[in-house]
Amino acid sequence: MFTALFAAPAPQTPAAGQGLPSGRPLRVVVLGGGFGGVYAAKRLTEEAAARRVAVEVHVVNRENYMAFQPMLPEVISGSVGVADTVSPIRRVVPRAVLHMREVESVDLAHNRVTCSPGYRPKSLILEYDHLVISLGSVTDFRGMTGMAEHARPVKTLGDALALRNHVIHILEEADTEPEVEVRRKMLTFIVAGGGFSGVEVIAELHEFVRRALGSYRRISTGDCRFILIHSGDIILPEVDHELAQYAQSLLAKRGVEIMLNQRLKAAAADYAILADGTRIPTKTLVATVPSHPNPVVDALDLPKERGRILVDPTMRVKERTNVWAVGDCALVPVAGWTETAPKYAPPTAQHAIREAALCADNILAAAAGRELAAFEFAGLGSLAALGRRRGIAQFMNLKLSGLIAWSMWRTVYLMKLPGIDRKIRVGTAWFLNLFLPPDIVQLRVGKSSGVSQAHFEPGQNVFEEGDLGDRVYIIIKGTAEVVRSTNGSGEQRLATLGSGQYFGEMALLNRAPRNATVRCVEGLDLLSIEKGDFNALITHLGEMRESFERTATSRGRTQ
Amino acid sequence: MFTALFAAPAPQTPAAGQGLPSGRPLRVVVLGGGFGGVYAAKRLTEEAAARRVAVEVHVVNRENYMAFQPMLPEVISGSVGVADTVSPIRRVVPRAVLHMREVESVDLAHNRVTCSPGYRPKSLILEYDHLVISLGSVTDFRGMTGMAEHARPVKTLGDALALRNHVIHILEEADTEPEVEVRRKMLTFIVAGGGFSGVEVIAELHEFVRRALGSYRRISTGDCRFILIHSGDIILPEVDHELAQYAQSLLAKRGVEIMLNQRLKAAAADYAILADGTRIPTKTLVATVPSHPNPVVDALDLPKERGRILVDPTMRVKERTNVWAVGDCALVPVAGWTETAPKYAPPTAQHAIREAALCADNILAAAAGRELAAFEFAGLGSLAALGRRRGIAQFMNLKLSGLIAWSMWRTVYLMKLPGIDRKIRVGTAWFLNLFLPPDIVQLRVGKSSGVSQAHFEPGQNVFEEGDLGDRVYIIIKGTAEVVRSTNGSGEQRLATLGSGQYFGEMALLNRAPRNATVRCVEGLDLLSIEKGDFNALITHLGEMRESFERTATSRGRTQ
Repeated sequence: MFTALFAAPAPQTPAAGQGLPSGRPLRVVVLGGGFGGVYAAKRLTEEAAARRVAVEVHVVNRENYMAFQPMLPEVISGSVGVADTVSPIRRVVPRAVLHMREVESVDLAHNRVTCSPGYRPKSLILEYDHLVISLGSVTDFRGMTGMAEHARPVKTLGDALALRNHVIHILEEADTEPEVEVRRKMLTFIVAGGGFSGVEVIAELHEFVRRALGSYRRISTGDCRFILIHSGDIILPEVDHELAQYAQSLLAKRGVEIMLNQRLKAAAADYAILADGTRIPTKTLVATVPSHPNPVVDALDLPKERGRILVDPTMRVKERTNVWAVGDCALVPVAGWTETAPKYAPPTAQHAIREAALCADNILAAAAGRELAAFEFAGLGSLAALGRRRGIAQFMNLKLSGLIAWSMWRTVYLMKLPGIDRKIRVGTAWFLNLFLPPDIVQLRVGKSSGVSQAHFEPGQNVFEEGDLGDRVYIIIKGTAEVVRSTNGSGEQRLATLGSGQYFGEMALLNRAPRNATVRCVEGLDLLSIEKGDFNALITHLGEMRESFERTATSRGRTQ
Repeated sequence: MFTALFAAPAPQTPAAGQGLPSGRPLRVVVLGGGFGGVYAAKRLTEEAAARRVAVEVHVVNRENYMAFQPMLPEVISGSVGVADTVSPIRRVVPRAVLHMREVESVDLAHNRVTCSPGYRPKSLILEYDHLVISLGSVTDFRGMTGMAEHARPVKTLGDALALRNHVIHILEEADTEPEVEVRRKMLTFIVAGGGFSGVEVIAELHEFVRRALGSYRRISTGDCRFILIHSGDIILPEVDHELAQYAQSLLAKRGVEIMLNQRLKAAAADYAILADGTRIPTKTLVATVPSHPNPVVDALDLPKERGRILVDPTMRVKERTNVWAVGDCALVPVAGWTETAPKYAPPTAQHAIREAALCADNILAAAAGRELAAFEFAGLGSLAALGRRRGIAQFMNLKLSGLIAWSMWRTVYLMKLPGIDRKIRVGTAWFLNLFLPPDIVQLRVGKSSGVSQAHFEPGQNVFEEGDLGDRVYIIIKGTAEVVRSTNGSGEQRLATLGSGQYFGEMALLNRAPRNATVRCVEGLDLLSIEKGDFNALITHLGEMRESFERTATSRGRTQ
């Protein structure tokens, strides 16, 4: 049903040599620009050039860069430049064709992929001889109350930057906040999930705030709280007990509160709610836990387990001849796999890179009628940086901690960072950070969306009488009561509102402070529209204006 | 009418020494964190400390940093890091209290300033003994058709970053765009205004695209067009004719088309419209021209001329005792001023910094009953960088061009950049850029607003039959026709739409491609709502859903 069924133009420098029997080059489409996708494309183009086989490789990715996940936490603290931890895909794989689009759907029966439109509102359709799926996983808070609205993921460069900006904003506000309780709430930083990612994030956050406080002279260290919530007995379940113990004591000694055998259950506008019901007031809740399959993978009719695509040890998807999967979205059997005790490669960068290379080789082998090779990689080990020149490292039977493990972390990841220019930039940034103060510039790029959602728990106020009105709210689910303080110290209930009703429009229509308090009675999910967007809509959309004005009139001066 | 009339807490380290006769410290509120504001605060805190006078200085600024304007064009090309050209205000003036807020209004009668709310929806009210206004100027496209929607300013760091991201996006799209005409349109970059800012921006843009093309192998240099539009006979009216001539020839030789004696009149979704009616297809229109007074200054009842506040040579606002103005928002008489031939300081950084210092000294003098000093600064000269190690410089009677002027530009501005850490970071970045390729990472932070405006000229299509639907449009002004292609090559008109009517909802409600073309008949101003926001609104706002559904039904299958 799409009008624009055009293929991308052929590269100006087509791969020389032999293609398919028909004479045209073999066309491979790679979905996803993470480690798996980019390294598969890289190996494909390089091997094809070396063997003089005509292969055309297309990479589809939403961003034009590949994020180097291990260094994302460093973006939070600003110890490396914002763009230094990511590599432009077209620099890593200059011979592939990059499409900066989102994958919308895959038609496995007709060997084609539909991608989102770009500047022109036409879908892009790519046909393939072989398809490599490397779409990784996504953050998905569905099913966890209030998390989508109030918890922050740290999966992408955008996430890391947003978290950094948020923390700087918090420090700015807290510095001039006169009420101690509000200030303490602002300065409570919670990270849920004690795996690698969570541990590195809390370590970088703690380090950054500690160093930045030199410029926020009205905030004392004692006002700040750092909390790491972990579901197990000890953090870092991925590594040896001894190393995990070291990391845990180190963080605790620095003042990070570690809550073990505890889970995050829900989030609300002003606090985190734990499994046992504890509520911790906070403005910063980072959740590293939920990792879900990409919705495109979810929609594919391929054999899967726990949302990951089942491949055989050659990286080819079971029961398929020209579909392959690598990286976090694939379930790759490793040495020792048996029917009764299946064993799969863990979702790490080192595995993704090796899976990608093997997948590329096997695609070329399959096209040439050669025999396919099987995946054999046992993993090299694990590394984690804990901030302040401390880390842990585990290779086979070797266990290291402290300064030496931290140096190893920096050396290994600097070597792995693709591109000599990135290596130089990150190396320089690390060097400069030894003696320069941390950066505290809050970068705001564009305004954020005017329509968003919020969740409130019973008893919480959405806004209070006298507040400035900057948003209108529509109730998606739950009940709220509208109350106003009476002359004495009491309160008068003016109305109860439910699903589909809205409130908060009076202050915007009359440009006055809120003249009543709106409080959550039963768990409230709200859609909120920012002042500017609300005014634009109401000015130009007749029906909407009339409807709001009718309600406003009927409410009279009650809200 | 505000409930939260709280003052900021006093600094933990109050200035020692003598304050007002009453014993409390002298309170100075500085509005604006540009050169004028920050340097006034810096001098005030430093002089007060040196003289042991108790002064409390508050700075109000929307951002927590001061942008170093002369280096903004370098952000476009990425030759310095994103945050390197801006300095955190609290690092430059550690002894002042920074409020990261917007100024909402000033009550001159009661000596108080109201600032926008922060995390808490309460206004912040600051009382002052002396007020320093340094709010600079703002970009304002009002009155220029289509400019607010489709032209890009380059005034703030956010503007520069947004332009950079846009250019990278253009290159990504153009690299895989099969239609030559669309590709050429995408690759036409227009800058309006041939003053310092416009010249530096076109030079950096040209340089960046030229260097980046190495990574976009399907784009040839010949596809790219760079156009500088200037209203005078020769660019750079600020400098000597000879130097301007040099700059103009240099840019022309590199391939920049310079359109002289020409003006930008309007902008539409796909082209720029010049004063003589010429239409140039483009996706990138940068306008450096319109500079308007800040709306807060506009609203103040103070003596003004051309929107700028009239001060006497001591920087004090005429007819006021405790209100001062410096920088671009002030009109400062300079040596040689006479009633009949008034002469004022130009709006440059070097003047703002000197005005600020004088203003600070005079505030302290006024408080101590000493005599005030008058402004005497003739200006040092001008510098402009033209990219590729070329520049121009003019000091008194000295005129320089080429490599030596460029070196001078770098040396002078590196020295002027506040903070040793910034100097080191920028110096390092410049050094690395001598041999590393330019960065082409497109950083997207947050999604942009879902409600925006667009302008179309008669004959332009808003969207075409078969396009993917990603927005709904509401007509603010103008007329549009809905047409559908008939079986032959003709077109059938289905409807004419006017002000207040909307279109484009069918594709969104039915998740299908657009089933008709909508074309502008009379100059169209549209409000457009992005798919996600539209769906959220329509799902939860009963009236809006009913209204859209009613219209959709009555339109049947006509759109």
